[in-house]
Amino acid sequence: MSRLLVIKIGGNIIDDAVKLASFLEMFAAIPEQKILVHGGGKLATRMAEQKGIPQQMVEGRRITDAETLKIVTMVYAGYINKNIVAQLQSHQCDAIGVCGADGNAIQGHKRTKGDIDYGFAGDIDRVDPDFFHNLLSRGLSVVVAPITHDRKGQLLNTNADTIAQELAVAMSGRCETSLIYGFEKNGVLMDAADDRTTIPRIDPVSYRRLKADQTIFAGMIPKLDNAFAALDRGVKKVIIGKAENLHTLIAGTSGTLIVNQPA
Amino acid sequence: MSRLLVIKIGGNIIDDAVKLASFLEMFAAIPEQKILVHGGGKLATRMAEQKGIPQQMVEGRRITDAETLKIVTMVYAGYINKNIVAQLQSHQCDAIGVCGADGNAIQGHKRTKGDIDYGFAGDIDRVDPDFFHNLLSRGLSVVVAPITHDRKGQLLNTNADTIAQELAVAMSGRCETSLIYGFEKNGVLMDAADDRTTIPRIDPVSYRRLKADQTIFAGMIPKLDNAFAALDRGVKKVIIGKAENLHTLIAGTSGTLIVNQPA
Repeated sequence: MSRLLVIKIGGNIIDDAVKLASFLEMFAAIPEQKILVHGGGKLATRMAEQKGIPQQMVEGRRITDAETLKIVTMVYAGYINKNIVAQLQSHQCDAIGVCGADGNAIQGHKRTKGDIDYGFAGDIDRVDPDFFHNLLSRGLSVVVAPITHDRKGQLLNTNADTIAQELAVAMSGRCETSLIYGFEKNGVLMDAADDRTTIPRIDPVSYRRLKADQTIFAGMIPKLDNAFAALDRGVKKVIIGKAENLHTLIAGTSGTLIVNQPA
Repeated sequence: MSRLLVIKIGGNIIDDAVKLASFLEMFAAIPEQKILVHGGGKLATRMAEQKGIPQQMVEGRRITDAETLKIVTMVYAGYINKNIVAQLQSHQCDAIGVCGADGNAIQGHKRTKGDIDYGFAGDIDRVDPDFFHNLLSRGLSVVVAPITHDRKGQLLNTNADTIAQELAVAMSGRCETSLIYGFEKNGVLMDAADDRTTIPRIDPVSYRRLKADQTIFAGMIPKLDNAFAALDRGVKKVIIGKAENLHTLIAGTSGTLIVNQPA
C-alpha cells in the first residue's frame, strides 16, 4: 500500500506570503503522494467587509449568503488555489488545484439544523477516492479548495478541517494515509500559553486523562475528537502542529502525534 | 482516432445567466469528448472599476497589472470556472475545471514587445496534450479558464481564443479535433449588419476572394487567419457561430465552416 499525506493549512500560513512560500517549498520536496487542503485566510473576510456584506454568525457558525459564497469561490478556488499551484509548479512539484465540484470529487448538501438556515454552507456527503487516486497515481499532487457542491448546480462553502478529515478517511482504503493539521501552535500543549510544552503523543487512554485533569479543554477537544474519529475510520495517524515545521512534523520530531492504540 | 470538440465561449454567453444555463445543458448532452474554454465576461472589468484600477490599453491590448491579475484569477479560474463545472455536474456531465498552471497544462511567458511591458499578460509556449488526454479518456469534460503560468510561480492572463486554438492544435495528434468559436453573430456574414447572411463555408480560395472584394474585413480577418493557421497545424475543422446554436453548429447546419481544402 502506498503512503499518502493529507496536509491541511489555515489562515496563519495562507495570509503570510513568506511563510506560505517556505511551506510550499517544503511541501514540494515531500517524496510521498500528497494532498494539500487549504482554508481561506483573511482576504475573503476583507473583501466582504469592503463590499459591506454583514457577517452573520449563528451559534458560532458563519452564515454563507449568496454574496459571501461568490467571494469565497473567487478567493479560495481561484486566487489562493491557483497561486499555490503555480508556486508548487515553480518547485517542480506537478500539482493540480480542484474544488469539490471538479470531477464530482466532494459532494455535499446545504447545512440545515432545525429552523436555522446556514445559507450556502455545506456538509459533506461523500468523497470520491477514485478521483484523487487517479490524479495521485499519475504523479500529481492535489491542492483542494474548501468549496464543495450538491450536484444540483450549487457550490457550497465547506469547512477545510472537515474536508481534510473526510478526504483522509476516504483515501485510507487505498493508501496508508497520514493526516497533518497545521495550525498556529507547536501541537497540543500542556500549558496553552507555553509553546514549549507540546505533548508528543496522545492515545485514547492519555486523552481521557488529559481531559479529566482539564489539561485539554475548549477548542482543542473537537479537534482531538475529530482526530480520533478519523483514526477509528482507517486513517493511520494524525499529527497536529505548526505547518512551518512540516519536515519535523512528518519525521515525528515536532507536533503532537495522535494514535488510537496505547503505547 | 476518437473525436474531440474544443469549444470557446465569450462574454456574450458568460454574462447572461439564462444563455449560459441553456448553453451548458447543450454542452453536457454532447456525446463526444469535449473541452470548454471560457473567456472572462464583464464581472472582472466591473470589479476592477469598483476598485478604481485604471484600465490601461497599449496598441489595442489591455495591460494586466498585479491587481488586475488578482481579479481575473479570482473571477476566471474561481467564480466562472467553478460555477460552470457545478452546472455541468447537475446535468450529469462529469467535468473538471482547470487553468494552465494545473498539471502544468499550459505554459506561457510574460508578453513583451520591444519596450512595451504588458504586465502579467501571457503568450503560450506549450500545451501538454497528455494532461488533457488523460482527463478526457477517463470520461471527464475539461473546462479551461484563460489563465496560464510561466512555471516560475507566476500566473498570466491569457487570451481565451488563443488558448482554444493552441489546445485544439496540441490535441490534433491524439484526436480528430474540431474547434468551435462561439461569438455574438451567426457566423461570418456577407453583410456584417444582417445576421441572415451567414457564409456557410469558407476555404482558402473563397477566403482570398472574400478579402479581395472586401466582404470580409477588419476584426474578422485575424479570426479567420487564426482559423486557417489551426487547420494548417492539424485541426480538422473550425466552426464560427453563435454558441446559443451549439447543436446546429456541431451538426453543420448553422455557423460558418472553415476548411483548408477547396470544395
